[in-house]
Amino acid sequence: MSDARLTPIDRLVKAFRKLPGVGEKTAQRFAYYLLAAEESVSFELGDAVSRLRKEVVLCDGCFNLTETSPCVVCRDETRTVTEICVVEEPSDLVSIESTGGFRGRYHVLGGRLSPLDGAGPDALRIKPLLERVERDQVQEVILAMNPNPEGEATALYLADQLKSHGVAVTRIGYGMPIGGNLEYTDAVTVRKSLENRRQFRS
Amino acid sequence: MSDARLTPIDRLVKAFRKLPGVGEKTAQRFAYYLLAAEESVSFELGDAVSRLRKEVVLCDGCFNLTETSPCVVCRDETRTVTEICVVEEPSDLVSIESTGGFRGRYHVLGGRLSPLDGAGPDALRIKPLLERVERDQVQEVILAMNPNPEGEATALYLADQLKSHGVAVTRIGYGMPIGGNLEYTDAVTVRKSLENRRQFRS
Repeated sequence: MSDARLTPIDRLVKAFRKLPGVGEKTAQRFAYYLLAAEESVSFELGDAVSRLRKEVVLCDGCFNLTETSPCVVCRDETRTVTEICVVEEPSDLVSIESTGGFRGRYHVLGGRLSPLDGAGPDALRIKPLLERVERDQVQEVILAMNPNPEGEATALYLADQLKSHGVAVTRIGYGMPIGGNLEYTDAVTVRKSLENRRQFRS
Repeated sequence: MSDARLTPIDRLVKAFRKLPGVGEKTAQRFAYYLLAAEESVSFELGDAVSRLRKEVVLCDGCFNLTETSPCVVCRDETRTVTEICVVEEPSDLVSIESTGGFRGRYHVLGGRLSPLDGAGPDALRIKPLLERVERDQVQEVILAMNPNPEGEATALYLADQLKSHGVAVTRIGYGMPIGGNLEYTDAVTVRKSLENRRQFRS
């Protein structure tokens, strides 16, 4: 069935189904909820979705998602530039920021090393990180990749790349459960793992 | 924080959180997924949401949600007008249609009797149903309300209202688990419950 022949409800159900973890029944439930709810609810959602990609850009400094580059973290003069926390994704940055326990800057890698998926070092923003380390005379790089095999491999690779730059390389502490995911960890545990960071042994 | 000061991502997360069963983490996950996915994914979702309320109306005949009134079921001349299946919500109608086992018409009540929530008979589309029964010389009304206390109460009330109209009143068979919900039942069970419908004893 071509999209033009779908009813508005079917078209919306199809669009909702693309979201992660949303199946047919959940998508239908969302659609019927929007039909029954006040019109402002669907207006706000439609507006927010439509504007998202137009208004969100990547920060030139740290590659976080932002409305204006540089982002709010990179603009903040009270945050030290000599400490960089490297994360895989913007959602990980949000998780660490929510703890309020980190006052340095970030660097969003844009993923992790994953040879099975064909994601090598070239797919990650490693070169801009090394340039920042040199330019800002960074003293410590905190590797906040997720504690799973791909994250560990990425941390090992980065530590190796950073070795010649005369910078302390630390790894977030394992307050977090192994195999877990930064995005889904509570703020207290994430904060603990920042406090317990240790010298990286590669 | 006023909406104007929210970032596009926060605004979208807030809008997603209004959907049933969606919490902060799920809403964030949806938002970041849209940011990372191809632009067409967010375009289609935004477009589908925005157009939904403009393009969907209620059918004058059965009160189903439709693009054009009368709806596709009410327009279908091959379906008998003398058999009406009464459901609580449009999603229940979709569930019964998906079985392909019913060739009559529908009537969407728009809810169920729920005294605790202040929903009395006046909140439901009972009068238009009685009018249809008279006008179309309906022979059978199938009460397909959900098998839970509110659904049963609604069925009892409707059966009482229909008594004086000389029409057979049946209740969908209990192939379905008691306490369950039409919207979440598989097509085979729903079809069984239609086949096993029985005389309503009020």
